[in-house]
Amino acid sequence: MTNPSIDVLGIGNAIVDVLAHADDAFLAANGIEKGSMSLIDTARADELYGLMAPAMEKSGGSAANTMVGVAGLGGKSAYIGKVRDDQLGAVFAHDIAAAGVSYGTPKATSGEPTARCLIMVTPDAQRSMSTFLGASASLCVDDVDETLVASAAITYLEGYLFDPAPAKEAFYKASNAAHAAGRKVALTLSDSFCVDRYRGEFLHLIETQVDVLFANEDELKSLYQTDNFDDGLQALRNHCPVAGLTRSEHGSVILWGDEVHVIAADPVDNLVDTTGAGDLYASGFLYGLARDMGPAACGQLGSMAAAEVISHFGARPEADLKAMATKAGLLG
Amino acid sequence: MTNPSIDVLGIGNAIVDVLAHADDAFLAANGIEKGSMSLIDTARADELYGLMAPAMEKSGGSAANTMVGVAGLGGKSAYIGKVRDDQLGAVFAHDIAAAGVSYGTPKATSGEPTARCLIMVTPDAQRSMSTFLGASASLCVDDVDETLVASAAITYLEGYLFDPAPAKEAFYKASNAAHAAGRKVALTLSDSFCVDRYRGEFLHLIETQVDVLFANEDELKSLYQTDNFDDGLQALRNHCPVAGLTRSEHGSVILWGDEVHVIAADPVDNLVDTTGAGDLYASGFLYGLARDMGPAACGQLGSMAAAEVISHFGARPEADLKAMATKAGLLG
Repeated sequence: MTNPSIDVLGIGNAIVDVLAHADDAFLAANGIEKGSMSLIDTARADELYGLMAPAMEKSGGSAANTMVGVAGLGGKSAYIGKVRDDQLGAVFAHDIAAAGVSYGTPKATSGEPTARCLIMVTPDAQRSMSTFLGASASLCVDDVDETLVASAAITYLEGYLFDPAPAKEAFYKASNAAHAAGRKVALTLSDSFCVDRYRGEFLHLIETQVDVLFANEDELKSLYQTDNFDDGLQALRNHCPVAGLTRSEHGSVILWGDEVHVIAADPVDNLVDTTGAGDLYASGFLYGLARDMGPAACGQLGSMAAAEVISHFGARPEADLKAMATKAGLLG
Repeated sequence: MTNPSIDVLGIGNAIVDVLAHADDAFLAANGIEKGSMSLIDTARADELYGLMAPAMEKSGGSAANTMVGVAGLGGKSAYIGKVRDDQLGAVFAHDIAAAGVSYGTPKATSGEPTARCLIMVTPDAQRSMSTFLGASASLCVDDVDETLVASAAITYLEGYLFDPAPAKEAFYKASNAAHAAGRKVALTLSDSFCVDRYRGEFLHLIETQVDVLFANEDELKSLYQTDNFDDGLQALRNHCPVAGLTRSEHGSVILWGDEVHVIAADPVDNLVDTTGAGDLYASGFLYGLARDMGPAACGQLGSMAAAEVISHFGARPEADLKAMATKAGLLG
């Protein structure tokens, strides 16, 4: 087995975020579940966009955000995800490449336009997402380059990939290729409603294929259908060797073989928008793991990157994460 | 003459801004004149975008930004400007309507894509703009509805409209229609290089048609080809009844018939991005003028709106300008 040339390869739904402020009454009036991600069709996307406040567009996509964070910490990251050959597709492709992530998935030349996620940020900084999957749903097995997968220490997959059927197949191809090459497979459960939709498949995956799991408290509880975080934690210990379990302002709990580590959240002076918090936690954790750091360092890098991204609008880091980590003594 | 049903109608190049951080070395390496606006073609736009850092997209366009500010202060504003029927055109149309501005210019169904302005924001918060005019350059006389012009107390025109030839014709049609209806015509000189390109025409316009002029110090000096602000001010007094002359952190000087008023800049705790400062100064000034306020109130509303927009990324206000103005005692 050769040494990996890439730290982390992310595979996910390639999405441009459309971010605007909204109040709780807007969410209620439009049937939007606070804090969650809902899938919407073209008609609903047009309707909801028409009702939204003036917005800004920033590249997003959960695994894509995570790969940008890995690159920002100084890691080598790559990304597989599908856009169309339209203006928003050009925006997505520009932004991820400009952030230093290797990205070469061919753009779709027909079919649905590039995916958009309409994100309402409420005054409490919570984000509620309505996603039109568009072209991202056409990611297929042909887009997964097994040589690329084999070259990455960790292949990181979104639970969201289970929503479009061809992407799910791509997911399995990548996971199998990673293990065939002796590499690690990481999964994020993405969203508690996503867990509801694919609980059986996720449980099977975790028991058989996942080396590193990311989940927040709601997702873990949903996975094991329990109201108790600790019950979920104990259930997971039997199946998954490494996990980063995030608990918002209460930090994270890390499963590391037989060990359990509790990591504090980094303080945030000005909480603006929680979009991307979980994605960037995964950036720090995965970078640490790919570079053979221990659980405390992995968790602390995750806490630091998450704190940066929630201190401004949008799901990708704006500060120099590597410099921040070096200043904080987490990187040499 | 009936009372106007609209406070201000803006006509300009309809543009989506692409904003990213850059350092001075980037500007130098790419031949970008700091603080100015340069026109670029498709090839240059693609090349420069490829070199830019990860960016965000926000609707822009000088007069469009100004109309959003007028609406934000509680005024009735409308806008005429051309986009294409593409994704960025949809973004522009959504954002301006969602901000409360009446906007109904038909989208171009063929030809160039929607205009983009690549904006590099340097650590000193200065913005340098490279504009691909695209579809905005196809604004033509047919897009100017004379009934709409006649219904507005003030029609506000961008100097930038002189760059595309058909838009210049639209400019004259609007100016003539406004005066025929007994309304006021306002002009912003837009950029000192723009003044260089059209000095003769601008001087003629100011001497014959412009009731209200907006210019910053560099533009005024360029107009009268002088190194001395006061010489420019004295020259302008002979030709234009009302003017708002902005001087960055030194505030503004207002010509008001025979009077000259000096207005302080509002303090800004956190200067982030000067994009839109002049546009939003014009918002406050024009709103005050349309509502028959005096020069001090017009200038103070302008200073307040400008201070808001330079305290964050992007050229459109994010705070509630009307509430801010009410709290500051500028509106009742």
